[in-house]
Amino acid sequence: MSMATGALLPSKPLTPSVNHRRLFPGRPTITISGPPTTTSLSLPLRSSPDYWASANADIQAHLERAIQIRHPLAVSEPMRHLTFSAPETTAPALCLLACELVGGSRDQAVAAGSALRLVHAAASAHEGLLSSRPRTDGPNFGPNIELLTGDGLTPFGFELLARSEPDHSNPTTRAESSSRVLRAIIEIARASGSHGMVEARYNEIEMIDGSGGDDEEWVERVCKKKEGEIHACAGACGAILGGGGEEEIERLRRYGVYVGMIRGIVAAKRVGRGGRRWLERKVGELRELGLNELKGFNREKVEPIASLMLTSEHDRRLRMTD
Amino acid sequence: MSMATGALLPSKPLTPSVNHRRLFPGRPTITISGPPTTTSLSLPLRSSPDYWASANADIQAHLERAIQIRHPLAVSEPMRHLTFSAPETTAPALCLLACELVGGSRDQAVAAGSALRLVHAAASAHEGLLSSRPRTDGPNFGPNIELLTGDGLTPFGFELLARSEPDHSNPTTRAESSSRVLRAIIEIARASGSHGMVEARYNEIEMIDGSGGDDEEWVERVCKKKEGEIHACAGACGAILGGGGEEEIERLRRYGVYVGMIRGIVAAKRVGRGGRRWLERKVGELRELGLNELKGFNREKVEPIASLMLTSEHDRRLRMTD
Repeated sequence: MSMATGALLPSKPLTPSVNHRRLFPGRPTITISGPPTTTSLSLPLRSSPDYWASANADIQAHLERAIQIRHPLAVSEPMRHLTFSAPETTAPALCLLACELVGGSRDQAVAAGSALRLVHAAASAHEGLLSSRPRTDGPNFGPNIELLTGDGLTPFGFELLARSEPDHSNPTTRAESSSRVLRAIIEIARASGSHGMVEARYNEIEMIDGSGGDDEEWVERVCKKKEGEIHACAGACGAILGGGGEEEIERLRRYGVYVGMIRGIVAAKRVGRGGRRWLERKVGELRELGLNELKGFNREKVEPIASLMLTSEHDRRLRMTD
Repeated sequence: MSMATGALLPSKPLTPSVNHRRLFPGRPTITISGPPTTTSLSLPLRSSPDYWASANADIQAHLERAIQIRHPLAVSEPMRHLTFSAPETTAPALCLLACELVGGSRDQAVAAGSALRLVHAAASAHEGLLSSRPRTDGPNFGPNIELLTGDGLTPFGFELLARSEPDHSNPTTRAESSSRVLRAIIEIARASGSHGMVEARYNEIEMIDGSGGDDEEWVERVCKKKEGEIHACAGACGAILGGGGEEEIERLRRYGVYVGMIRGIVAAKRVGRGGRRWLERKVGELRELGLNELKGFNREKVEPIASLMLTSEHDRRLRMTD
């Protein structure tokens, strides 16, 4: 791409350091070992990345079709790159699996899953502007382009979702279907907005700037807000779009909070003062709470979504911290 | 507010200068004097800021109710400030007036008008990050908070619009109404997205970084993309939400482009190589084209929307450049 614009800005970042991987520098890292937890639901939590990979592949294909390379390339190209190179998140896959769990078909949720991936990519692009570590996982477009690209990804997510309204000839079905799409837009707007992911990023910065906080405070103010809210939104959106009832929607929203918190804790790769014992206990508690929310659903269909709480990807990452 | 977070970032801006008021530094400024243009429609273009003021007051009231001050104040307070202190734009008012022109009632378009104001405020907040001039029109929150606040304003706009779906008991009416809201979301997402306002900001930076371009190029690549697209979107959204036909929607979209381009040219307060004669001719041409698009509508009802092409506010601004 032409770097004329990128060159306008110095590569110097906006802030000395906002890097969640270094929230607790110098503290020990841990590995969760031993057999996967078995919960009161007696559901074996198997490492099943296949469900996640398959849902993600559907979202990837949807986005590949949607993001067209067009002039100016300096706008299109970073958009594509920053979408597909953003840090992994299970929220989009959770959206599709929640839709299937309540009896919907995956394609009803694929636009919402794509929108979740886009708002997450937008936040990641802008998070880079708050970090002292230059991006190492691909081209560095410079803060100017990363700012503008992030600004473009969020509306694009809402556009994809709004376009996904199915074309029903029956007015009652059409009205119901449009209402679900509008409700999903509200959910994603709230989760990605000033009292969702934006507030989480604010809390994260404030904690780093302050004392750092203790483990519990970090989990509540950062993990719950950041990964928790976007996963909660994903669970609720999937259930809404799949035609789930209100109780199912709220159960999958709460389930999403627990999945997100586990993901947030594991992704940070660091443990606070409580050490390994605290982290194992915390993740165990969250899994228990999460599985509890899945109790009301058909047990045969629960495995894919439950697998998001423990995957080989997680195990691999945890082992890497040794 | 707590400036703990703002303090994380140096007040140094991201780029040396991206300030559209200085696109053509050192070139002469002009004043448009004489009687307002009379067009082939024989419509007197009267200075009528009342319509604009009244539509803006409705949007302001809607936003005042919607933006609640809640914890954390460091997130809510800048959100409120950056929304209400953003540079003026006639796009939200155009949305309401277009809705009325096609026979709708103003309240059908007030959420869309508010969303337009929010995406415009988000772009303005982030534009400050690309400017060498520190904000002088109120508290300076620092780039960290301005980045995060801008990130929160865009989803909030889509949330407000998605929430505006009226509650009809008749499924056909409800389906129609939801479809209009979804269509308006698509319009605003496109206008504020990577090939709308984002591309305009990219073009602006590129032109400053390059040769500066000539007057015509600047009007096409910056004014048409930046103010033109958001006003085009406003005209189309108003017509969609007011139940206008496809031809009315497209006429008001094109009308919006001309209004936006005029606003963009006047707001920049500078003339390029063509000097005063070029600018007067250009604005005259755009007014002519704009009024031409209004020909198909009820002449009695055209005055409010036509007044957006020439208001006392514009006259005042132009005189200030003497």
